[in-house]
Amino acid sequence: MQQNDEIFPARLSLFRRKLSDYKVDSIIFFNMSNIRYFSGFTGSDGVLLVTPGKAILLVDGRYTAQAALETINVQIIEYKDKIMGIIQTIDDYRLKYIGFEAASITVEMHSKLTKGLQAKKFVPLADELKLIRARKDEQELALMKKAADISSAAILSCIGEIKPGITEKDLALQLELNARASGADQLAFEPIVAAGENSALPHARPTNRKIKNGDFVVIDFGVKYGGYCSDETCTIAFGKLTEKQKDVYQRVTDAHDRALASIKSNIAAGDIDHCARSVFTEKYSRYFAHSTGHGVGLEVHEAPRLASDSKDILEEKMVVTVEPGLYFPGLWGVRIEDTVLVQENSCEKLTKMDKQLITIK
Amino acid sequence: MQQNDEIFPARLSLFRRKLSDYKVDSIIFFNMSNIRYFSGFTGSDGVLLVTPGKAILLVDGRYTAQAALETINVQIIEYKDKIMGIIQTIDDYRLKYIGFEAASITVEMHSKLTKGLQAKKFVPLADELKLIRARKDEQELALMKKAADISSAAILSCIGEIKPGITEKDLALQLELNARASGADQLAFEPIVAAGENSALPHARPTNRKIKNGDFVVIDFGVKYGGYCSDETCTIAFGKLTEKQKDVYQRVTDAHDRALASIKSNIAAGDIDHCARSVFTEKYSRYFAHSTGHGVGLEVHEAPRLASDSKDILEEKMVVTVEPGLYFPGLWGVRIEDTVLVQENSCEKLTKMDKQLITIK
Repeated sequence: MQQNDEIFPARLSLFRRKLSDYKVDSIIFFNMSNIRYFSGFTGSDGVLLVTPGKAILLVDGRYTAQAALETINVQIIEYKDKIMGIIQTIDDYRLKYIGFEAASITVEMHSKLTKGLQAKKFVPLADELKLIRARKDEQELALMKKAADISSAAILSCIGEIKPGITEKDLALQLELNARASGADQLAFEPIVAAGENSALPHARPTNRKIKNGDFVVIDFGVKYGGYCSDETCTIAFGKLTEKQKDVYQRVTDAHDRALASIKSNIAAGDIDHCARSVFTEKYSRYFAHSTGHGVGLEVHEAPRLASDSKDILEEKMVVTVEPGLYFPGLWGVRIEDTVLVQENSCEKLTKMDKQLITIK
Repeated sequence: MQQNDEIFPARLSLFRRKLSDYKVDSIIFFNMSNIRYFSGFTGSDGVLLVTPGKAILLVDGRYTAQAALETINVQIIEYKDKIMGIIQTIDDYRLKYIGFEAASITVEMHSKLTKGLQAKKFVPLADELKLIRARKDEQELALMKKAADISSAAILSCIGEIKPGITEKDLALQLELNARASGADQLAFEPIVAAGENSALPHARPTNRKIKNGDFVVIDFGVKYGGYCSDETCTIAFGKLTEKQKDVYQRVTDAHDRALASIKSNIAAGDIDHCARSVFTEKYSRYFAHSTGHGVGLEVHEAPRLASDSKDILEEKMVVTVEPGLYFPGLWGVRIEDTVLVQENSCEKLTKMDKQLITIK
């Protein structure tokens, strides 16, 4: 595996080859995940300017010392005013065609920059940059596997805590404590622990609702480790389920398994979504109210998208979730999710929980 | 105090009066905090369209049920594709001049929308919308006071845990557990617990560094309660300080106190920054490497800005932080922060910790 001081230069060097395809002499990054990916800087604000010969990180005074500590071979420039700092730097380096992330810069920022840059050409790059972090390198995969280990272990331990009277919030806290004790930097997103009728809300927040007999408990959990996210969902049965509940769990499992079995390099992401969706008969399909999955990495939701209208093609070393679900408003819902690494002819599960129905009595 | 079902209509009604000033017949909100502020919807994705007669919330299938539960008198429209959903709705309502948040919409989204909307006029609103959530109503202040109570109590309790050998991460976890046990929804931001040389990094992340004799420990902590944030920083002394450390603590206290004493309605936010900064002699001023403060509300950083280049004017019922600091790279740093409510002739501290130097022996 590469050493830390080789990772970022290696990523930059690969990326720089594309500058001429984009017809630019430099790219300015605003997206903090992209900045971290190319420079190692983990702060919450800053701008990275990449030219064929240099990487220049512009930060405000809060981050000057941290930027110097975290980066290697990156020039650090401190600004008082971000817009002025960018314009000054572009002038100093006589850059003429500056690519930017159209999906990360706001209309307001763009308007201020174009005013200040006048004759220079500011080139929007949207689809061109969507997948720049999608294929993971060895360092990233090692961190993502560790993140998945931590969160799967936390879910397993949390399931052991489910007993009558415990609340969604109690379980969410248990998940977090367990993950932190195992070395998670932080959570990747606010955990979902949704029981009974709350499980019918795909993005429910934990409440004081107590777990009771006949509940499905949807646990959607992920942590960050070394900056990288994990993402996994288990739906647990508490007490006695109805036949319909069991049937729905099985159908969601089928959708999940079939989608997983179809993942490999060079397949269209839209086909994976279709594959999961096709398991559901018409009676059920309208209750699968979201897309099948998404990429995971420094951000918990990133490219590619596994959705019916996605134009992405899966490639080896991409990491994506597969998370079909069925939700019956006012009643209950089921979601089953794994995060997997795309390989040439198959995929490897990074998340560790088995997805057979676990019933707690 | 107004009931829940009156708050959102009241905010919308106040806001609608401005549509004609902006020369638009509707505004489309993308910023999730603005959407929550006007509709009560707490999801992570969606779009709110406000016309003189209607509020229309567009969400994807994950959020349809939740949106219906959380809002009152808001029409919910479910979209498959966000851009198509927006365009369809604007067409259906025959809107012609649609204002949008230039600071929240990306260049990519803007480009797709303007292509789809063709003849319609899409009007950027930037400075006009900056302060729409800045003045807090009674409901908001009640939630912010509760958030401040929870986080101040967590800091106080955490200070009691400081002993030789405890790490920054241990203390950060204690803070969080304490806050959650007291009812915090979640943290407002990743807590800063930075000891010794780490305290010289204004935005340090908690590490495994152990607290030791002679350390300053900077604790910057905030929680969310009912969606609203608190924000407070204490710098604690552990063991014996040098004369210089004591002197710097006193100067930062002076800057903090003087800025607080100057806050009232109708004063320029830039003057508060100047007031804090003017306490430091030339020898020190370059170590105050960030601005003096910022608004707090649904977001932990929101308008107004208390910075030298800010054009904001403080008004009654705004809630802002005052957080001067001095940071000596490689050595140590001090920051002292309170969150205050601007009043006609003064301000009221919402955060509760006393800012006299606390020394733990």
